[in-house]
Amino acid sequence: MAEEKGVKLLDLWSSPFGQRCRIALAEKEVEYEYKEENLSDKSELLLKSNPIYKKIPVLIHDGKPVCESLIIVQYIDEVWPSKTPILPSDPYARAQARFWADYVDKKVYECGTRLWKQKGEALQEAKEEFILILKTLEAELGDKKYFGGETFGLVDIALVPFTSWFYSYETYAGFSIEQECSKLVSWAKRCKERASVAKTLYEPKKIHEFVGHLRKKYGVE
Amino acid sequence: MAEEKGVKLLDLWSSPFGQRCRIALAEKEVEYEYKEENLSDKSELLLKSNPIYKKIPVLIHDGKPVCESLIIVQYIDEVWPSKTPILPSDPYARAQARFWADYVDKKVYECGTRLWKQKGEALQEAKEEFILILKTLEAELGDKKYFGGETFGLVDIALVPFTSWFYSYETYAGFSIEQECSKLVSWAKRCKERASVAKTLYEPKKIHEFVGHLRKKYGVE
Repeated sequence: MAEEKGVKLLDLWSSPFGQRCRIALAEKEVEYEYKEENLSDKSELLLKSNPIYKKIPVLIHDGKPVCESLIIVQYIDEVWPSKTPILPSDPYARAQARFWADYVDKKVYECGTRLWKQKGEALQEAKEEFILILKTLEAELGDKKYFGGETFGLVDIALVPFTSWFYSYETYAGFSIEQECSKLVSWAKRCKERASVAKTLYEPKKIHEFVGHLRKKYGVE
Repeated sequence: MAEEKGVKLLDLWSSPFGQRCRIALAEKEVEYEYKEENLSDKSELLLKSNPIYKKIPVLIHDGKPVCESLIIVQYIDEVWPSKTPILPSDPYARAQARFWADYVDKKVYECGTRLWKQKGEALQEAKEEFILILKTLEAELGDKKYFGGETFGLVDIALVPFTSWFYSYETYAGFSIEQECSKLVSWAKRCKERASVAKTLYEPKKIHEFVGHLRKKYGVE
């Protein structure tokens, strides 16, 4: 790979995983070139940069690719440490942040996808599971401002992109996240007051339109 | 949780995930209390320490639990930084180490389990997939001594416990890892020359006996 200087992000506008990287780069005030990928016709650069998974997002820094969103966010934190830290300095707090970011990775996307892909009993099961996942996250948040306390950090960055999908989840699965987890909804609002989040996330209605296309593509309608 | 001083590991002797933590603790020469868990009758301490997954391993340090093996290994590296470093200091090398350790997590255990749980066509598929996974890891290893180069580190710790299972994988799926991936087998031998690994891993025959019990339990025989 050419040792091209600078920072490039291979991404897809609606991807919660890509949005994590965009939020982290914005928090660190890193300038970068954004390259939108077409997932039905992936670029040579994407295939070459992420030969293992062939997935976005990929961060290319001085010609070297970093893959997997949470790994990218930690990389960004380590390369640009001077601005707002994303991970705390205390090892125990770091382990907790990694645990909960990993929990979001393991649970929210997969179960959230079932909320717009499934019907009938499978949808009801997914809904119950999703509410339990959100309640678990809400319990961890407690009365803190952000997941790590006073500072916006890794778990907030991992989770907040999914809040733009809440409207779609609610619409297709028939429930209210505000009613189930009002503290989590307040946390999402606080996150969205940050410039890094505000400029990265899309309107829930625009995501909903996108999810509508996905449903057609997967024959859910 | 009581603020009891010291280090405790809740674990199961045969667990590759638990073994990762034991290797990391041995590399750092940390003294700790080992607590064997009975997974059919989990201790109150385990259930209280890992309420989310209720799984071993859990590292309890001064009364505070850390869960998920790769998170535990990174925690150990950060709390006891003076001995052999497990993660390199360069951010790019750290991201690469995290990527490959995560790859081991996502691929090796799940596919390896299918090698002793499946039969017929599903077993053949699992075997082909497993060989591909090992070849991918072998390509990443290349001609290096360890995955990170000259220094034994995170990816080695993540992968080496599974090498005690190789004999069982080979026996039940009918193939030779030595024949498919001789460099990886040489790497495993190098790792086993380290005291931390040698004292942690069990004889492949003992693991095979354990896998035999698992097969009976899951009705594979």
